[in-house]
Amino acid sequence: MSALPRTGIGIDVHAYADADTDAADGRDLALAGLTWPGEPRLAGHSDADVAAHAAADALLSAAGLGDLGSNFGTSAPQWAGAPGTALLAETARRVRAAGFTIGNVAVQVIGNRPRLGPRRAEAEAALSAAAGAPVTVSATTTDGLGLTGRGEGVAAIATALVVGP
Amino acid sequence: MSALPRTGIGIDVHAYADADTDAADGRDLALAGLTWPGEPRLAGHSDADVAAHAAADALLSAAGLGDLGSNFGTSAPQWAGAPGTALLAETARRVRAAGFTIGNVAVQVIGNRPRLGPRRAEAEAALSAAAGAPVTVSATTTDGLGLTGRGEGVAAIATALVVGP
Amino acid sequence: MSALPRTGIGIDVHAYADADTDAADGRDLALAGLTWPGEPRLAGHSDADVAAHAAADALLSAAGLGDLGSNFGTSAPQWAGAPGTALLAETARRVRAAGFTIGNVAVQVIGNRPRLGPRRAEAEAALSAAAGAPVTVSATTTDGLGLTGRGEGVAAIATALVVGP
Repeated sequence: MSALPRTGIGIDVHAYADADTDAADGRDLALAGLTWPGEPRLAGHSDADVAAHAAADALLSAAGLGDLGSNFGTSAPQWAGAPGTALLAETARRVRAAGFTIGNVAVQVIGNRPRLGPRRAEAEAALSAAAGAPVTVSATTTDGLGLTGRGEGVAAIATALVVGP
Repeated sequence: MSALPRTGIGIDVHAYADADTDAADGRDLALAGLTWPGEPRLAGHSDADVAAHAAADALLSAAGLGDLGSNFGTSAPQWAGAPGTALLAETARRVRAAGFTIGNVAVQVIGNRPRLGPRRAEAEAALSAAAGAPVTVSATTTDGLGLTGRGEGVAAIATALVVGP
Repeated sequence: MSALPRTGIGIDVHAYADADTDAADGRDLALAGLTWPGEPRLAGHSDADVAAHAAADALLSAAGLGDLGSNFGTSAPQWAGAPGTALLAETARRVRAAGFTIGNVAVQVIGNRPRLGPRRAEAEAALSAAAGAPVTVSATTTDGLGLTGRGEGVAAIATALVVGP
């Protein structure tokens, strides 16, 4: 039997930035590989792109290569502040360097804002280019409940499929 | 190499309906393809069947065909109020029309009520009939924590596997 | 066409034990197949190992064999209080007895404490030994938001891939 593919999972959550203390740097919201001028942005020492982060974590999870923290955390300061798409591209490189072929990644963004639908194709193109494999992007809301429903932040959940060496 | 299968992910959340303002229509709870007389029902402009919705979103996510909002949202008013099983059946039809074979869908319902166990086989039969492929249903609770633990609503999470054209 | 693999999903959440009412039994935190002396432990009638439980639920979900409640719940009192690794091992046995081959399981732990990174390899070895198949372990936090961000408990989410009879 040829090798079975392997599945992986990744979740990421970031809070909206505080308008008073965080907005002075003038950055736009980064989400799903795109920038969103005029939308409330998410806070984080990175660009807080939850969709790109969840996608990268799902790939690492499928390949058994740790997670964003072990790959790009405080022990790897050269990655501090790197865009989510750069983390996703480097993740895909590491997964392939370990002998895996990437099948696909599927990301769902969970939150009230921004509305992803009008830019879905653009987001899929940006994340797929970073991963070098198909990344699909979808979106949902939580009926006003939970951390995303209350507008405290945005979450993303991703699953990935790779096939091993 | 033959085509790798593709994985997808979908989450849905609905709040319990307000007993005073929403109950007058006399609808029963719709969940996992079944109606649940006597159980507190979920609110929504659809039938709020979070399990059927999560399953449909996971299929769309795997196939890269958008999400429930882009397929059945305000731009498609003929689907307003459609039962979750009808959305799942139409989703499966669209996924197959795009050239995919559906492998399976797995849905987990997260919430305090109703207790799914006694009707699991019935739910799996209803959702599998809608999807035309095996849909498994499981359930869990969250130890009193979070939006489902506090009894504010019910969540469902699904993953799907399809194989591409 | 040979059988497509099947994907499954599982989430588990447990609250931190109350230091006053629950600590008298002297148990250590159980998480991801390991014990964590000195870490705040999780409450539950089992050992509350959310990672092992989510992994087991993902396998049952993929195979269509119900969930932890239907397999090891109140109707199966001999499993009350069983360690998560024992539940995972018995789950893997049941999945194989139903004719499935287990491809892999991927678990992500979501919480503030403990820090999993330093013991990831150990956790992966413990859970993989229990499942008799590769189980990967990753970790994330939620930026202070939601039930895990507020430190109320720890969640785990898992996906599994099996191939059927």
